[in-house]
Amino acid sequence: MSDARVKFQQRQTVEQVEEGNDLAPKFDDRGLITVVTTDADSGELLMQGYMNAEALRLTIQTGEAHYWSRSRQVLWHKGATSGFVQRIRELLVDDDQDCIWLKVEVEGGASCHVGYRSCFYRRVPTGSEYAQKTADGRVDLVWTDNEKVFDPEDVYGDAPNPTIL
Amino acid sequence: MSDARVKFQQRQTVEQVEEGNDLAPKFDDRGLITVVTTDADSGELLMQGYMNAEALRLTIQTGEAHYWSRSRQVLWHKGATSGFVQRIRELLVDDDQDCIWLKVEVEGGASCHVGYRSCFYRRVPTGSEYAQKTADGRVDLVWTDNEKVFDPEDVYGDAPNPTIL
Repeated sequence: MSDARVKFQQRQTVEQVEEGNDLAPKFDDRGLITVVTTDADSGELLMQGYMNAEALRLTIQTGEAHYWSRSRQVLWHKGATSGFVQRIRELLVDDDQDCIWLKVEVEGGASCHVGYRSCFYRRVPTGSEYAQKTADGRVDLVWTDNEKVFDPEDVYGDAPNPTIL
Repeated sequence: MSDARVKFQQRQTVEQVEEGNDLAPKFDDRGLITVVTTDADSGELLMQGYMNAEALRLTIQTGEAHYWSRSRQVLWHKGATSGFVQRIRELLVDDDQDCIWLKVEVEGGASCHVGYRSCFYRRVPTGSEYAQKTADGRVDLVWTDNEKVFDPEDVYGDAPNPTIL
C-alpha cells in the first residue's frame, strides 16, 4: 500500500497519449481539465465540472470527487458543505486525455445546487419537435424533473449562488 | 411547422436561468459551450466536445449533432467525414445553462477518432486500488475496451490527427 502523491507523465507523442498506458492529462491554459460526472447505477449525467492537477490527484488518491470551483476559485471536495459526497466507482480518461469521466455513487442522491438530483432537469425540443413548437425561433425548455430532493436554503443557507450570469 | 432560426434569450436573472423556461445559454469567452454526449440506449459517455452558437442552433434545428472543432477551428457536422452521424434523442441543458447534454443514436456505433466506440476506453485506478498498484505515485491506465469498431486510416485517410499535445 502506498499513499504516494500521484505522478502525471509528460505528454510526448500522440501514440503515447492515445494508445499508451501513461496517465498524461492535458490541463488547459487555466490549468483545468473538463470533468463529466455520471451516476454509476443509473448512468444519468449528474454534473459537468473542472479539476486542476491537485483536484485530480486528490480524487485518485482518496476515491472521492474533488473539483476546482471556477466561481469560488477554490479546491472543492464535493459534499463537504452539503454532505453529498461522490464516491468514485470508476474514473476514465478520454483518447487525448483532456477529459475525465467519473462514475460515482452519491450519498443522499443529489448533485445539483438548485436541489435536483441532476443538474440536467430541462430539455430543449429538437428537429421536428422544434419545428412544430416554435413560430419565430423561440424555444421553451421542457421540464424532465420537477421534484427537488433537498431545499437549497436548508443546506447552503445564505452562501452565494455559484451561477454567474 | 417552422424552420425559423433558433433564438436564444438574454440572461437576466439567476432565477430565470435556473428555474425558468428560457433557453439562455452561456457561451464562454471563446464563444463556446461545453457538450457531453452519451449513447441514448446504453448511457455510455461517447465524447465531450464544444459548440458555438451556430452549432447549437443547427443541432436544435436539424436534430443531428453539430460541434465546433477547436483543433480545426471549423463548424463540424459530426459524421460528415466518417458517416457516424449522431441523431439527437434528447438535448438537455444544465442549471446555469453553460453545459449541453446530448443523448444520441449513432449510425455505425462509433464516436471516437481512434476507432473505439467511445472516447473513454481506459480507466485510472483510484482509492485503495491506486494505493495497492502504485509504488511511487505513477499510475498505469487500465484498458476497458480493446476492440476497435473501425480502422481510422480507412475512414480518415491522411487527414491530420486532431489530438494536440
